[in-house]
Amino acid sequence: MRGKFISLEGGEGSGKTTAIHFIRQWLESHNISYILTREPGGTPLAEEIRQLILTPREEPVNNATELLLVFAARAQHLAEKIQPALDKGTWVISDRFLDSSYVYQGKARGGDTKVLDQLASWVVGDNKPDATLVLDVPVELGQERVVQRQHQDRLDKESVLFHQKVRDGFLECASADPLRVRVIDASLSLDAVQKQIEDQLMQLSKTWSGDE
Amino acid sequence: MRGKFISLEGGEGSGKTTAIHFIRQWLESHNISYILTREPGGTPLAEEIRQLILTPREEPVNNATELLLVFAARAQHLAEKIQPALDKGTWVISDRFLDSSYVYQGKARGGDTKVLDQLASWVVGDNKPDATLVLDVPVELGQERVVQRQHQDRLDKESVLFHQKVRDGFLECASADPLRVRVIDASLSLDAVQKQIEDQLMQLSKTWSGDE
Ligand SMILES: Nc1ncnc2c1ncn2[C@@H]1O[C@H](COP(=O)(O)OP(=O)(O)O)[C@@H](O)[C@H]1O
Ligand SMILES: Nc1ncnc2c1ncn2[C@@H]1O[C@H](COP(=O)(O)OP(=O)(O)O)[C@@H](O)[C@H]1O
Ligand SMILES: [Mg+2]
Ligand SMILES: [Mg+2]
Repeated sequence: MRGKFISLEGGEGSGKTTAIHFIRQWLESHNISYILTREPGGTPLAEEIRQLILTPREEPVNNATELLLVFAARAQHLAEKIQPALDKGTWVISDRFLDSSYVYQGKARGGDTKVLDQLASWVVGDNKPDATLVLDVPVELGQERVVQRQHQDRLDKESVLFHQKVRDGFLECASADPLRVRVIDASLSLDAVQKQIEDQLMQLSKTWSGDE
Repeated sequence: MRGKFISLEGGEGSGKTTAIHFIRQWLESHNISYILTREPGGTPLAEEIRQLILTPREEPVNNATELLLVFAARAQHLAEKIQPALDKGTWVISDRFLDSSYVYQGKARGGDTKVLDQLASWVVGDNKPDATLVLDVPVELGQERVVQRQHQDRLDKESVLFHQKVRDGFLECASADPLRVRVIDASLSLDAVQKQIEDQLMQLSKTWSGDE
């Protein structure tokens, strides 16, 4: 039986990395074999591409370059890590995936949706996540949560307007595909966020076991 | 007046880097302002992408990843170096360009021509070279010329069959677009190669001055 593929999405400081730990606990308590991964990245080459994308640099980074680098990393991640795991029945939990491209390179940078659709269909095809949890917080709250971070990458340094477009973009992903993409109110306490995530996982696993 | 864009193509050891020096002499003797560049690469970020592509590594590199990295570097090269130079009237001479993608990632690796066409139309658009010189040599001769090189990159290490497909691929580029792509017999002596290149440059500059 093929494993399930779940992605976590949301702006900086929305709580994706925190949520992954809740999901890990849930998977372990249900004896499900899993891997945790992230984008851009997930394999040694894809992590090198991540560095190219996120390192602050003086040279202006062309929007098409950024988009193609993200999809290059994704093609490698899918071929070398995600697909082999799913084929073995292992669940894959990824901190960001395809929706982040629509939101960051599309909505926030103004990238052409037709080009994104072509790349998505060519690189990702049927390997979309089975479920996506969008962690939604107001931009200011997300930014407050990450101010302590020592290391600010090239995208963290974008304007508030940019991050507002990111938030709106993820909410649009959820309206466009509500069965796959579920919104978590991540402005609440850690306990309340964990509870929503567990509810979603219970619902999803019920639906998935009904599919078989 | 927009500068002219000339690319040099051909397999390893065909004499591209050598030919660039002949072209440089010709441009200087005609008082034409120019830049010399290469692909993948040409800007600091694009050169970092080149390293990712060419470094030998244990992790198998997915074909789609290689193709997307090549086009990511090209988008950056065009936006940050080639287009600004051409706009100023500077000629651009590039050691490899788009035809290498059709040949290496398409013909030799079996990449889908429709995907290549989409990427080419999106990333390169009308910025195709005004002229391309293909340096054609038998595979064995090209390989003999480069055996002394200390440093073998990931593509140099491919099979003879791979390099045969590369040679055939460049000849197909020339048949498909004979006005732009001109074949140089690069198996001859350096003097004879230089002579052919100068003849082509004289012909091209006559055509181009007739265009105005
Ligand atoms: N629901 C929450 N309430 C309060 N703080 C939170 C909450 N979720 C995450 N945090 C804190 O906010 C910061 C950013 O969370 P993190 O999971 O790293 O976000 P992301 O991975 O989405 O950037 C961390 O310090 C984390 O402990
Ligand atoms: N026409 C030629 N005859 C003999 N040797 C050549 C000729 N053209 C190039 N070479 C030599 O072959 C080697 C490879 O040439 P180079 O221009 O570096 O090829 P490329 O850049 O296409 O890989 C160099 O040592 C060069 O001096
Ligand atoms: Mg995180
Ligand atoms: Mg060379």
